[in-house]
Order: sequence, then C-alpha cells, then structure tokens
Amino acid sequence: MDKREKIFEKALELFIAEGYDHTPLSKIANSMNFTKGGLHHYFKSKEDLLFFIHENRLKNDLIPILELSEQISDPEKRIVYFLKNYINKVLTKDASIRVLVHEINRLKPKHQEKIKDCWRRVFDLIHNALLEMEDLDKIKKMNKTFATFSLLGMCNWIFYWFDYSRKDSADELSDTCLDIFLEGIRKV
Amino acid sequence: MDKREKIFEKALELFIAEGYDHTPLSKIANSMNFTKGGLHHYFKSKEDLLFFIHENRLKNDLIPILELSEQISDPEKRIVYFLKNYINKVLTKDASIRVLVHEINRLKPKHQEKIKDCWRRVFDLIHNALLEMEDLDKIKKMNKTFATFSLLGMCNWIFYWFDYSRKDSADELSDTCLDIFLEGIRKV
Repeated sequence: MDKREKIFEKALELFIAEGYDHTPLSKIANSMNFTKGGLHHYFKSKEDLLFFIHENRLKNDLIPILELSEQISDPEKRIVYFLKNYINKVLTKDASIRVLVHEINRLKPKHQEKIKDCWRRVFDLIHNALLEMEDLDKIKKMNKTFATFSLLGMCNWIFYWFDYSRKDSADELSDTCLDIFLEGIRKV
Repeated sequence: MDKREKIFEKALELFIAEGYDHTPLSKIANSMNFTKGGLHHYFKSKEDLLFFIHENRLKNDLIPILELSEQISDPEKRIVYFLKNYINKVLTKDASIRVLVHEINRLKPKHQEKIKDCWRRVFDLIHNALLEMEDLDKIKKMNKTFATFSLLGMCNWIFYWFDYSRKDSADELSDTCLDIFLEGIRKV
C-alpha cells in the first residue's frame, strides 16, 4: 500500500467512526503525524479526498468483480457470480460503503458522474443478463428495469442494517438474496 | 392543515430542493413571511424541526398503513396489503422519504430512537408474517431475518432511483416487487 492509499484508509476509518462532517482534514493529518500542508501534497480538498477514496475503493473492490462477471457467457451464472462476490467481498466487507454512498452528494457534479458511471455498469450487467434470460425463455414476463432495481435494492440496503461484527453470515445472506431473486423471476 | 403542518411542508419542500444543510431556518422563515423568532414559537431548533417533520410524515403516511395491515389475519395478504400501500402511497409519493432517511443521523439519539421504533414495527410486520407462513408450510426453509431485510431493501432503495415525474408506474413497480418476493419464498 503506498502512502496515498494509507491516507485513504485512515481517513475512511475516521469517516466511519466519527462521520464525514465531523472529521476535519486537520484530524486526519494529526492521526498520521502529517501537517495539514503535508496532506495537501496528495489532494487539494476534503472533497477531493472523498472522491479519491471512493474511486480507489471501486477500483480495488468492485471493478475486478465486474470485469470477471462480464466475461461469463451464461446470464444466470453471471448474476450468481456477481451477486455472491458483490455481497461477500464489497457490501459485507466493512462499513465503508455506507459512508461512501451516504456522502455521494458531497461530491462535485463531475466527480459524482464518474462514480455513477461505475454504478450504471452494475445496473447494465444485471439488466442485460435479464434480457438474455428472457430471450432464452427462462424468466417470466416482467419489467426488467424494475426487477434489476429490486435486486440492487436487496443488496444495497445491506449496509444499512448488516452487523459488521458478524461477517461470517455473509454467505448465508448472499445465498438467501440469490435464491429469492432467481426463483422469483423464473418462468414456471 | 394547521400552521405547524404548513411549516413542515414548506421546510420539507426546501430540504428536497436544496438539501437539509443548505436550508437555514432563516430561509424557511423568509419563504413563509415569518421572522426567525416567529418560527421559534413552533420548535426550538432545526434538528427539532427535522424530527417533527419526520414524525408527522410517519404518523400521516406510514402508521395508518401499518395499523390496517396488522389487522389482516392471513399472513400473505398482510404482506401484499402492506407492500402495495407502502410503495404506492409512501415510497413513490414524493422525494421526501429520500431526505428524511438520508438525514436521520442528524437527529439526536432520543429522536432517532422514536423513528427507529416505527421502522422496527415494519420489520416485525413482515418477519412475523414469514414466521406464520412457515408454520402453514407455505414457504421454503430460509433465514427469515435476511428475507425480511431483502424485501425491505427492494422497497426502501426505490427512493434512490425512482423518477417522481413518472408516478403512474408505481402500480407496476409494487406488483413486480411483490411477484419476485412471493414467488421467491414460496415452497414448490
């Protein structure tokens, strides 16, 4: 982990513990024995820092899962692979996603757009898989946009209620979500 | 609508349009031809105002649906009635729930507890219905806490993506969520 990433991790830890609003840059600097000027060498503002942290987390945690998922040709297996990994390795990893999603509207519009591009890719992955499953006559007639958002809602709500001290339940959780969703859309 | 509720509605409108942080009490006062002191007659602080708005919305929109649902003896019909009304009359009514849920951590702990009591009642409604359906051998073996949160996630995520200028799609949306969930949990 380079110095920049160490700052990201420390800042995120403080944001989770004390809230984004209650964590001034000076506190982050102090906790790492930096001067505030020293921190400014790495980014220009707290907004910049929040964006870099968000981008870094997506790049390290979410994008690799997306890339591997996109290579799976069977649409149902694609959904299963993505969901299992998204829940087990991103959503239940730690409480950071709660902070990042919650504070997304603190970002400048151009930064928000970059983050949203990544979430649109997640939406497209699921939505396209549903379109392909429909072509294969595997799912019943339904609004696939609403079905996609339903699945993403099941997942994304996890960070509001999940007990991060009990991470061993992640597997059962992702199995439950997948089972409800896949049986719920299947053509009988 | 009494004067107090008129202030709530106006403040909520400003919170939706400009964000809670960017709406000082003076702006709310100005928009209603009040002095700031005049507003203080109704509540002591912006935090108080946010809490009263939240409590008022729950009392007017959510609690009546909860009360009627709790009287339905058939557990599946209870879920259907609650979900249809929760999605059609609360979640897709306007963007207020987005602001209220998003800003819940601005409330004092004692106020947060009061709001959370209401959401616990929602959780219990669904969870108890699933326990009863299990006793009737209508659903497959599953973690009913996770299933309850999955359904609530499907619903509660709606305010993040729903297009409030296209409210006529609310019925199709609630039907899609219910169909996926009920078919997804059903014993085959």
